[in-house]
Amino acid sequence: MSENFENQKQTLPDNYRHLMDRAIEARKRAYVPYSHFQVGAALLDAEGGVHAGCNVENAAYSPTNCAERTALYRAIADGHEARSFEAIAVVGETDDPITPCGVCRQVLIELCPPDMPVIMGNMKGDWRISTVAELLPGAFSSAQLHKA
Amino acid sequence: MSENFENQKQTLPDNYRHLMDRAIEARKRAYVPYSHFQVGAALLDAEGGVHAGCNVENAAYSPTNCAERTALYRAIADGHEARSFEAIAVVGETDDPITPCGVCRQVLIELCPPDMPVIMGNMKGDWRISTVAELLPGAFSSAQLHKA
Amino acid sequence: MSENFENQKQTLPDNYRHLMDRAIEARKRAYVPYSHFQVGAALLDAEGGVHAGCNVENAAYSPTNCAERTALYRAIADGHEARSFEAIAVVGETDDPITPCGVCRQVLIELCPPDMPVIMGNMKGDWRISTVAELLPGAFSSAQLHKA
Amino acid sequence: MSENFENQKQTLPDNYRHLMDRAIEARKRAYVPYSHFQVGAALLDAEGGVHAGCNVENAAYSPTNCAERTALYRAIADGHEARSFEAIAVVGETDDPITPCGVCRQVLIELCPPDMPVIMGNMKGDWRISTVAELLPGAFSSAQLHKA
Repeated sequence: MSENFENQKQTLPDNYRHLMDRAIEARKRAYVPYSHFQVGAALLDAEGGVHAGCNVENAAYSPTNCAERTALYRAIADGHEARSFEAIAVVGETDDPITPCGVCRQVLIELCPPDMPVIMGNMKGDWRISTVAELLPGAFSSAQLHKA
Repeated sequence: MSENFENQKQTLPDNYRHLMDRAIEARKRAYVPYSHFQVGAALLDAEGGVHAGCNVENAAYSPTNCAERTALYRAIADGHEARSFEAIAVVGETDDPITPCGVCRQVLIELCPPDMPVIMGNMKGDWRISTVAELLPGAFSSAQLHKA
Repeated sequence: MSENFENQKQTLPDNYRHLMDRAIEARKRAYVPYSHFQVGAALLDAEGGVHAGCNVENAAYSPTNCAERTALYRAIADGHEARSFEAIAVVGETDDPITPCGVCRQVLIELCPPDMPVIMGNMKGDWRISTVAELLPGAFSSAQLHKA
Repeated sequence: MSENFENQKQTLPDNYRHLMDRAIEARKRAYVPYSHFQVGAALLDAEGGVHAGCNVENAAYSPTNCAERTALYRAIADGHEARSFEAIAVVGETDDPITPCGVCRQVLIELCPPDMPVIMGNMKGDWRISTVAELLPGAFSSAQLHKA
């Protein structure tokens, strides 16, 4: 991962700070009776609206949904176009800033612009910024599937 | 499945009709470039609020999310308690009223009361009502897992 | 669920006992660092072959795979036709016989005959038998999707 | 992605050629009534054994399993230790060599050594080699979860 993935000590820019605050707020809603690992996310749309998400677990594990995906799915359900989003923040209680799982990266690459910033944080205030494409290099996408 | 699963010819009660209308509206937002199969859902919370969802597909298929789950996850993210919901409606363009997939039934049993009504419809106006527990008899649940 | 779902006190028929023994053996292979909940499964094909599976968990929860699905996927990968299977046994350490999650029921209805027996057991030797169709009444299937 | 991700024109080393041949063979078993997109995979264990997998789709999309995961889950079910594997090959009919989806990358990082080679190919014979860690930079893993 590129150097901008390194833990940043400087202040997060204000617009991203606001988005991260919404992710921190959303994290409190997490339904996590199995892992007790709360995660929050906040997605910024092209009109400046924010869509909040948290993780929602399931006794059967597989149907568990992550915070990032909750935010993305609800934004689509509210009529926002795929690939119209501008940034997403995600936060959990981790030593280093949390990173999205592979499932969420696959959903990010489907629904967001490849160069969209992904702001990753932890509850101590550490943060990193990467992009959707950097997080899933050489992503599997509809271009591969449509050859079928 | 019990007899109330049979296709109903009588009029859907008004409160469920309203919920189904919201599901029909949400269905238009479906992101379905792979199946072209649009599904909508609407979840009723204990305060009378409605949470709408649609299906959101993915080139990799597995990360696809159904309409019912979109509605449930966003309601949890907005602070509603698990098992506090009152009804869910789901609709698709099917010959008979659509039924939830097994993944959604597993999420319904985790997040909703077992006797919560599930109103299933199609675009011709046919409908059926079942319950969360009827749709997943002898469900795997946290009671089984917690023995671990 | 119908009465044959009731906990059986009589002896499991020999052919199913053999299948359950294979599920119990497969259960030892479970990769479950997160739940510590080991599950095993064994699938009987039309030629009398047995395909064993265990659950395989993931730190991100969603990519977790259940024992039943491991058995089914590997049998397909070995060239067995969908809907050519004859029975599946599944076992976990539960008070009552374990039941498949909704995700597995959705995969069972896709890949197995609807009247195929599902033998569910626990480590104390209790068992129940149901069928694929009984476990997912009014299942969502390709017939609904293909209307698209 | 690093330069070794570039499409290779030279001959694939013999050991990887053999693994790719097994993936090509497994691809024929794919159960893909919905996408018609066949994928095969072959996983090499530490004793030289090969575990083959194909993708297995589902009408409900979410329960679909990819070829790579089929290979990994069955190897675990046969008693191989997590992180004991040596290489995996994956192949599909794509213009450029196919790449694993994010879900599979998350499973690879859980079950394989981070520096394990992932050989990606297409049906024209093009290929690329990357590693498990390169495909999921800054992966979410149990180290993050266990802080919970």
